[in-house]
Parts: sequence; structure tokens; C-alpha cells
Amino acid sequence: MDETIDAGALAARMASAARAASRALGRASSAQRDRVLERLAALLTERQDELVAANTRDLEAADAAGVTGALRDRLALTPARIAAMAEGVRQVMALPDPLGGIERLARRPNGLMVGRMRIPLGVICIIYESRPNVTVDAGALCLKSGNAPILKGGKEAIHSNAALVALMREALADAGLPADCVQAVATSDRAVTDALIRCSGDVDLVIPRGGEALIRHVTEHATVPVIQHYKGVCHVYLDRDCDLEMATEIAFNAKVQRPGVCNAMETLLVHRDLAPRLIPRLFPRLEAAGVTLRADARTRALWPAAQAATEADWDTEYLDLVLSVRLVDDMDVALDHIARYGSGHTEAIVTNQYASGQRFLREVTASCVLINASTRFNDGFELGLGAEIGISTSRLHAYGAMGLEELTARKWIVYGEGQVRG
Amino acid sequence: MDETIDAGALAARMASAARAASRALGRASSAQRDRVLERLAALLTERQDELVAANTRDLEAADAAGVTGALRDRLALTPARIAAMAEGVRQVMALPDPLGGIERLARRPNGLMVGRMRIPLGVICIIYESRPNVTVDAGALCLKSGNAPILKGGKEAIHSNAALVALMREALADAGLPADCVQAVATSDRAVTDALIRCSGDVDLVIPRGGEALIRHVTEHATVPVIQHYKGVCHVYLDRDCDLEMATEIAFNAKVQRPGVCNAMETLLVHRDLAPRLIPRLFPRLEAAGVTLRADARTRALWPAAQAATEADWDTEYLDLVLSVRLVDDMDVALDHIARYGSGHTEAIVTNQYASGQRFLREVTASCVLINASTRFNDGFELGLGAEIGISTSRLHAYGAMGLEELTARKWIVYGEGQVRG
Repeated sequence: MDETIDAGALAARMASAARAASRALGRASSAQRDRVLERLAALLTERQDELVAANTRDLEAADAAGVTGALRDRLALTPARIAAMAEGVRQVMALPDPLGGIERLARRPNGLMVGRMRIPLGVICIIYESRPNVTVDAGALCLKSGNAPILKGGKEAIHSNAALVALMREALADAGLPADCVQAVATSDRAVTDALIRCSGDVDLVIPRGGEALIRHVTEHATVPVIQHYKGVCHVYLDRDCDLEMATEIAFNAKVQRPGVCNAMETLLVHRDLAPRLIPRLFPRLEAAGVTLRADARTRALWPAAQAATEADWDTEYLDLVLSVRLVDDMDVALDHIARYGSGHTEAIVTNQYASGQRFLREVTASCVLINASTRFNDGFELGLGAEIGISTSRLHAYGAMGLEELTARKWIVYGEGQVRG
Repeated sequence: MDETIDAGALAARMASAARAASRALGRASSAQRDRVLERLAALLTERQDELVAANTRDLEAADAAGVTGALRDRLALTPARIAAMAEGVRQVMALPDPLGGIERLARRPNGLMVGRMRIPLGVICIIYESRPNVTVDAGALCLKSGNAPILKGGKEAIHSNAALVALMREALADAGLPADCVQAVATSDRAVTDALIRCSGDVDLVIPRGGEALIRHVTEHATVPVIQHYKGVCHVYLDRDCDLEMATEIAFNAKVQRPGVCNAMETLLVHRDLAPRLIPRLFPRLEAAGVTLRADARTRALWPAAQAATEADWDTEYLDLVLSVRLVDDMDVALDHIARYGSGHTEAIVTNQYASGQRFLREVTASCVLINASTRFNDGFELGLGAEIGISTSRLHAYGAMGLEELTARKWIVYGEGQVRG
């Protein structure tokens, strides 16, 4: 009971400090915010020994806990990785300032000039797992956009994150801004995070990044708005009339190029008339790349080596070299399948038909809908945002890749000359 | 216990029906959606006797409950009010279609054409109190923007709302669209609404409109995103160097023209050097209009007739002919006061100084910040939106007046020519 009270008080103190600091940050000029990032990039390099030392403590704990392989590797900070982080910070610094611009300034009949000015969202709580580079990436994007982040990383990286946040706070102070513009939740006590996401007055947004259980927990318990990044059950639909070579390359790329990410294809939908020509071209390549095929009965009639797909397959984000395949009689069936099983993440069609492409674009609801291109392009960098804080699968505020602009709001501004309402 | 299960099942059934209907609505052409609104406007007039009869049942219940005055008046449907509703529907119909437009279509270095297409949010649950005209206004805005609303009005208007929603469903059917594109929660059982706001898979947004208790309850219990419309503690700051006549007119208008609404001024901040000239001009006019003044000590030294303001006054949305007044030494004090007590709704400055105006515009965080104009202009119609579903005081998704565009999301769209990721 006492612990809960302490967690609540700690969260309230952090949120209120962030709110106060965010006011100063919101007032800071673009040049001043850029100075913070410049200083941070320099400090990352200067203090790399400190960072490696802090990271070593996390790695030792991981070793003691028997963590190995990819998980351990993601945790490790090397001089090369630290240099890459610093370079990432400089890239964010070089992006245009998302704040202060006034859009759609127009004159009303009564002479009022009405427009909308970009402002920071305020205080953003970011909850993520393991990799310490997220700490710096997310922190840099928030500072560039005038937002004060409260960062809660995975407990495996707690010392690394603390060291990285300490450098950010030093960079802020060096640039004349409050250190509390960036804070880390320095405890793995979940009660603190659970209290933070209920600090509605002081925290403006929560972005949970990680597994579905984490996101559901946050959505369930937060009173602060949440931007969700749920799984990607992404489809590629190969239309009756499409370029066989292009269809093969796109399907192969969408599945194989990086199967472990959310914009990789999980289900392939093939028009029945295309299947006899497509399957003998595509499936051997997929199998040679190690892909396990799970197909419906009609596909298996053409390719008996495939396993039988179950209902559960259509709902599954494999994040692995596994692909479910279904033959469809026409585009209506493909659209119904996507509406039913798709997660609203990324959907692509390959077609030669103008009308098919336009219809797919219009009728599919997903954060990114592509014609004749790989699903793997649904990514902030590839779409031209310059940087990405994540991919939202909720339609409120931001849908899909979120860059700097998606970390801002717009307030109405009015230039008057003494107008009053009649 | 059984009742809770029933409420949950009813909510789930309504949400799922709305989701299915919203797919058809999202596919409907602009012309088809407009036909629904045209038919609705016609039906409102044709069936006004039906509506008046349903409304009579609500009025009888109100009379039995002893409801009188403004509250009873707001509930009443007369032929003139029904005609005004129909005219409102036609006005919404005449607005440009907010859907399908593609913004910022630009070519990436790899040849991909990347843009963002406006789509509906999906299913929107709107919870509001008393006035039956909200049913038609909100319904028309949702249908125009391709969203399927689930409407939960006040229990005092339950028969009126049911009759209005029945006409909307008839108009939908007449235009060849599913009637479930609009549904009313036909019970005053709060458990149904409480279950609806947790139907995360099928409901995309909740907009509670009403008292603070309602909004807090929804925010606390929803898992679906909520757009809040909290109170407006709005300020006007009269700068040292400003036009006395303009300052007087704006302050008077902001307080008196319609004191019961959220964009009316509640607190006046006066630069100390302006006060001796301003107060003898403005205060007699305010008092003559029936305004009660609650002032700090320095103001009362100049105008002893004013009551003494307490700390609570600075936090209060009077929604009445009451005004709190504070003298400030400079703009920093005014900005601090607004940051501390303002509700982020509407804030105005009256000034002749270029630098003061620009600084106020930049540094005040509110959904609408005005220079030399009355706070009363923070309204969707006045700002040029053509219609308004409310004023959001949360910065996520929409900040301030929400029109048709704020009822949409943008999905990324990509036109490719066979591009794959390397």
C-alpha cells in the first residue's frame, strides 16, 4: 500500500516537472532546440566509455539471467553503435523545425485572419522494451518537436538508459534549458508507469512500443490518450491481370527481405486465374529462401507441398519465414478477406488494371495502401518523413508512420482588428 | 449481474453492426451520402407531426418531473425548430466532401508516388445531454464524413431522439445504405454506454459532450479514444499599449454577448498602467449589463464597488454574468496566470504592440489564441469550418473547433511501378 502511494507520488512529481519544463521547451527557438541535439551528439561520442561501462552492467545482468543470442545482441552498446546513435541525432537535428509554422491563414468575411499554428503536444510518455537506441531516437524526436519525453525503457537496459538520459539532461542544461525536459523512469516498478499514464493533467500522450500485451495493458489502464502500434497482419493481393515478374518480385520482397518486422507480408491472396502461372514461379523461390507455406485447399491443389492453413493462420502475424496463401475468385473476396483479417497496418495490390488499383486504394482501410510496391515501404524513412517514432494503427491523431509533424498539434490563431461578435 | 451481461451484449451488437455498416458508408460516393442528407431534410419536414408527438411525450415526462424554464425550453421541438434542423442538414450537405482527397502527393527518389488520402474515422459514439437538435446536427456531420454514429442522448429526450434517429435510418435506407449507419442507444441504462466506450475493436472514437462529470467518467472508463470538451476558463489580457475603445468593446463583448457559453471570457487581466484609464470606461458598462465583478485588491483600490476575488475565482467557469479581474505588472505575469489557470480553450490579447501580439500568439497554449478580437469567435462557424461538432480541449487529433475534416483520418497511399526494398 505504501509502495503504491510512493509510486503515485513519484509519477505525479515527474509529470508535473515535465509539464513545467515543457513550457520552457515550447518557448525555445528552433536554434536552441538544435543546440541541444548538437551537444547531445557530441556528448555521446565524448562519453562513450561511460556509456559502455553502464551498458556492461546491463550485459552482466543479462548474462547472469542467461540471456543470449539476438536479445543480448540488441542490448549491447558498442562504439560503432554509439557513433550511429550520434549520427541519428544529427540527422534529426537537420530536419526542418516542425513548430511555429502557420497553415491555411485565410481571411474571413469580417476581416479576421484565421490560421493554425503548429505547437508541441506537450509531455509524452514513451514505454518501450530493451534496445537502448530507442532512448536516444525517441528523445531526439521529442526534443526537436518541443515535447518533453518521460522515457520508460525495458528493465534489462536500465543502466544504459540512465546513462543516455543523463547525457540528454546535460545537453539540455548546456543549451540553457531545464534538464527535466527529458526524464527517465529509473525504476522497474510497474506501479510508477501505471500511475504516469493516469496523470491526465500533465501527460498529454502515451506511446507504448512493444508487444501486444504491453499495448493492451496501457490502453486498458491509461486515462491519457494512447497511440497504439499493434501488430501487422499485412496482405499482398495479386490481381488477375498483373505483371507476373513484378508480382513475383513484390511478393518475395514483402515476405523475405526482413520477415521479422511489422510491415512484412503475412498472407498472400492470389486471383484464381493468375494462380496457375504465378505459383510455379513464386513458390519455388519462397521455398528456396526457407519460407514455410500454409495454404488453402485450392492452392494446395496446385502446390501439394504446402501445409494446410487453418483459420488461425489468417489472423497470425508470423514475424517469421512463414506465409499463408489463399486463392480468391475476385477482388471482392480479397477485399472482404482483408477487411476481416487485416490489422489496418499495410496492404498492397499488384495489378495492371487502372480500375482495380484505384478501387483497392479507396476501399482498403489501412495505415498504408500500396499499388505495385512492396509492403516493406510502410516506414517513416521510406515515405519521406525523415525519421519515425513508430507506426500507429489507430486512426485518431495519426494513422501509420509518425514523424515530427505527428508529434505536434495545431492551435487556431486569429489576427483581428477589434472585431466583436454581433 | 444478468443486466450487466445484457448491456455488454447489446453494446457489442450495436458496435459490430455499426462497424459493418460503416464499411458500406465509407465506400459510398459523395453523391450518395448527400442523397441521405437531402432525404433526411425532406423527411424532417414531412413528418414533423410525428416528431412533435414524440417530443410531447418527453415534455409530459419533463412536466411530471417538474422541469421548467430554460431546461424545458431546450427540450421542446416546434415546427419552426424542426424547419431549422432541416435547414442545418441542407447546409451540411452543401459543404465540400471531406473524403477521398489526396494531400501532399510527392515523388520519392525511388519513383514511388507517396501521398495521404482522407478517410472516415469509422464508428463514432457521441454522448450528449438534453437538446434533441444535437441528434440531427451530429448525425448529419458524421454521415457527411462517412462515419457511422452511435448516438446516446439525454434520457429526457429519449422519445424525440428515437423519432429523429428513425427518420435518419429511413433516409439511409431510401438512399440504398444500411440503416445501421446511424443507431441510437434506446435505453437510459448507463451500463450500455459504459460497455460501448470499451468496444475498442469496433468503436473508433467517443465524443462526450456535456458536463465535466460526464466527460471525466468517459475518460476514466473508455478504452476507445476520447475527445474531450472540457470547460473554458477564458481570459482577455489588455496590454499596456492598446486602443482603449477597442479594449472596452472586446472585453464587453467577450463577457456579455453570450455569457453562458464556453468561449465567453471569465477572467480579465489588465496591465496596471492601463487600468486607471480602462476601468472607469469598462466597468460601468459591465455593471449596467448586470455583470458582477470579483477583483483582486489592486483593482478594488481603483474600483471599490467590486467584490473581493478569492483563489477559487481564477479557476471558475462562471457561465454567467460574473467576471473576475486581476491587475498585472506586465505580460509575463499575464502569461503565467493564463498558463496556471487557463483551461486551454480560448485566450485573447488586445494590444497595439506588434511584439506583444506575436509573443502572446506564440506562447499561449490554447485551442484558439486571438489578437484584437473577442474570444467569442472560437467557434467552428466563425472560424470558417462551415459546421462544428464541438471544441476539443485535448491536443491529440484535434485541438479546438472540430468540423468535417476533424472527423476524418489520413491513410498513406503509394503508387508504385514494381518497387521493392533493397
